[in-house]
Amino acid sequence: MTNSSRKIIAVDAMGGDSAPESVFMGLARLKTTVEHFVIFGDQEVLDRYIKVLPSGLSYEIRHTSDVVTGDMEVMTALRAGKKSSMGLAIQAVKNGEAQAVVSSGNTGMYMALSKIILGTVPGIDRPAIASMLPGKNGRSVCVDLGANAECNAKNLIDFAILGDAVARTILNKTSLKIALLNIGSENAKGSRLVKHAAESLKTIFRDEYVGFVEGNDLLQGNVDVIVTDGFTGNVALKTIEGTAKFIVGELKNVLSKSWLAKLGILFCLPALNELKRKFDPRLYNGAIIAGLNGIVVKSHGNSDAVGFANAVQFTSNLLDSDMFERMNARIYESNLHIELSNKENNA
Amino acid sequence: MTNSSRKIIAVDAMGGDSAPESVFMGLARLKTTVEHFVIFGDQEVLDRYIKVLPSGLSYEIRHTSDVVTGDMEVMTALRAGKKSSMGLAIQAVKNGEAQAVVSSGNTGMYMALSKIILGTVPGIDRPAIASMLPGKNGRSVCVDLGANAECNAKNLIDFAILGDAVARTILNKTSLKIALLNIGSENAKGSRLVKHAAESLKTIFRDEYVGFVEGNDLLQGNVDVIVTDGFTGNVALKTIEGTAKFIVGELKNVLSKSWLAKLGILFCLPALNELKRKFDPRLYNGAIIAGLNGIVVKSHGNSDAVGFANAVQFTSNLLDSDMFERMNARIYESNLHIELSNKENNA
Repeated sequence: MTNSSRKIIAVDAMGGDSAPESVFMGLARLKTTVEHFVIFGDQEVLDRYIKVLPSGLSYEIRHTSDVVTGDMEVMTALRAGKKSSMGLAIQAVKNGEAQAVVSSGNTGMYMALSKIILGTVPGIDRPAIASMLPGKNGRSVCVDLGANAECNAKNLIDFAILGDAVARTILNKTSLKIALLNIGSENAKGSRLVKHAAESLKTIFRDEYVGFVEGNDLLQGNVDVIVTDGFTGNVALKTIEGTAKFIVGELKNVLSKSWLAKLGILFCLPALNELKRKFDPRLYNGAIIAGLNGIVVKSHGNSDAVGFANAVQFTSNLLDSDMFERMNARIYESNLHIELSNKENNA
Repeated sequence: MTNSSRKIIAVDAMGGDSAPESVFMGLARLKTTVEHFVIFGDQEVLDRYIKVLPSGLSYEIRHTSDVVTGDMEVMTALRAGKKSSMGLAIQAVKNGEAQAVVSSGNTGMYMALSKIILGTVPGIDRPAIASMLPGKNGRSVCVDLGANAECNAKNLIDFAILGDAVARTILNKTSLKIALLNIGSENAKGSRLVKHAAESLKTIFRDEYVGFVEGNDLLQGNVDVIVTDGFTGNVALKTIEGTAKFIVGELKNVLSKSWLAKLGILFCLPALNELKRKFDPRLYNGAIIAGLNGIVVKSHGNSDAVGFANAVQFTSNLLDSDMFERMNARIYESNLHIELSNKENNA
């Protein structure tokens, strides 16, 4: 995938609400096997932060004063974006100067620039956003979380291939359970899209494809990969966030109204803090824009140093894996399947 | 809509996990302005429960021993279903013997039978499931929650018309905020489907259409009607349920591990019970299968007496309203709009 055999990550230091501080403070707290960082951004601004980096960290700064913002027209932003810290960081992967790129910048722009600069893996039509979900019985990888508002069955199969490669790497399992998100678990339920995709997934993934799951299964952790179109995936992800926020807010409201409850909460604090640590969203920071010729990791726009460090660690783990080999093997198998079914249809 | 001027509700006494007990215990605890109930089910079974009904309650039992189950083939079930307690209860609305029907039976069968027996309101292509969601700043009506796995823009406009009529009735507001569920709030975001529907909603609902909301807005209560296709709506609803269950489960887990937390929770119990009462799902029981020539209310399959009583109360409130007049006025307006835009396209 890259020309370099050293483990090098390109970093967009200007993307995100609290950049570049979060980026540098994040890099400063890393305990990593990454050998070198190529950091892109405004030299004058970055110079104020480099002092926080530990002396052992190998890095270089590449200056650019160009930025892209979320409110730019797409075409303007794309032109401007190629010379921005984000665009140049992606370009570093293309050139082989780095093996992966991390940014907390605008998601839409990051996806568009990555796709233009790196291109998709042969056999994959469109990149997709894959990320971890916490769950009662374990974590799972959900894909697509919003890159593709409209999908066909081939896209869903691609997403399954991408999710499979990411999940094997991150969950470190040899056998996976792959499921399709639907509005019922019976075969007859759902849209033509998911029913069509289900047929192909059975053929490509055999026993590893376990059928449909529903919205209430998303946080069960009973499957390893949950495949869905980007519209449904994005709504579901944000619904999880909104519901969690709503419940915690209502709990705080009702408990703060009585002095007895306030006292009780004091006794519960150690336990509650344990829970807070376990589901700290910063621990889940780092989504991969999968399906591109390179490892492109999106860190949350509002991530702080802890969050950014986790996104870099996530990237480093992906670099250690044989993700692309697995992906390519699956693409080869699925192409065989598609060729075969085309032959059958034409016979 | 009906021939009768008395307020009469048809009840399927055999549908649901704990029927007919939940049905009779539910009717028994009602304080209602409903004048008469026509109750359908197996006479021999029902005879065991009628003693719980208060002497003031006006009702009659109509015997049928036919039942439909969720695992029947669709066509078999539809044939069998017409003579089942569910089918006959719907038929009572068609005949004008009742003005509304309530059942806790199988959702798919209930929708199919209702559509066949009652037909859709002229101008509405497909019925949709509308239900209340709780929210931080108030309740809202969400539609469609799973009746239509695949939708076009006309369907979404229909759902907005249905949601508008239901929300005006239930929320008792003169001016509503109507929104479309999407994966971003900016105009350029989302699928062609929602962008297309958004254009028409602006014309039909003018200032009452407030644009896009996202998954994390579902429980905000900032809008009164949230319109979405049945696939996304169903996934979102079940994601809310799953997330709530996950959080409560994790809280219980962590709090039960320490004796200090267990003690603390004792002090919090009154406040927690207040919250439990506020968001008791039984209080939200009762979804309307909207868009049919009659009021068809679905009670949750696992509802108990309290839940069933709430579904009947919900039905009674709908009966008191001018829901159908509002719906028809909107349909008339939207048809004008569609005719006008057809003329413009042909000009």
